[in-house]
Amino acid sequence: MHYIIVYDVSDNNKRNIIREKLKDIGGERIQYSGFIIDMDEEELIQLLGRIRRILEGEKGRVIAIPLCEKDMKKLITLTHNYEIKDELL
Amino acid sequence: MHYIIVYDVSDNNKRNIIREKLKDIGGERIQYSGFIIDMDEEELIQLLGRIRRILEGEKGRVIAIPLCEKDMKKLITLTHNYEIKDELL
Repeated sequence: MHYIIVYDVSDNNKRNIIREKLKDIGGERIQYSGFIIDMDEEELIQLLGRIRRILEGEKGRVIAIPLCEKDMKKLITLTHNYEIKDELL
Repeated sequence: MHYIIVYDVSDNNKRNIIREKLKDIGGERIQYSGFIIDMDEEELIQLLGRIRRILEGEKGRVIAIPLCEKDMKKLITLTHNYEIKDELL
């Protein structure tokens, strides 16, 4: 199952840790604070547990959006002169 | 059909215009730059056309994620001391 994970995390350090975690587990970055990842439900629960621990004491909201094959095919990306630059990482 | 619209737009003014547009058409704000909206495919195409015109000449990436009823029920939100504050608007 594919999941899109988007997150609002105000603390730079915590946000960086979450971003690296999502990259490590094979996430593809689709927004500055958004990844798409192929994983099963158990892996998702584990990931959210880790993120919850990372967020401890900080403000943040993380949303895991499941994406079935049918919806996946209908996903639309509108891009204007856009690239996620290294300096943003 | 529900759609989640998430956007990375660097220009503050353009981003504000997009946010107001999404609120005007009944979007519920779920992230700083993310809304969930109930609309049909034709309305989505119209919306993306408008956003494309707003973005003209600027950098940005907008993603429209379709969400079937089944996936909608499995969406997970992890919130930590979080609220989208007025001053962020």
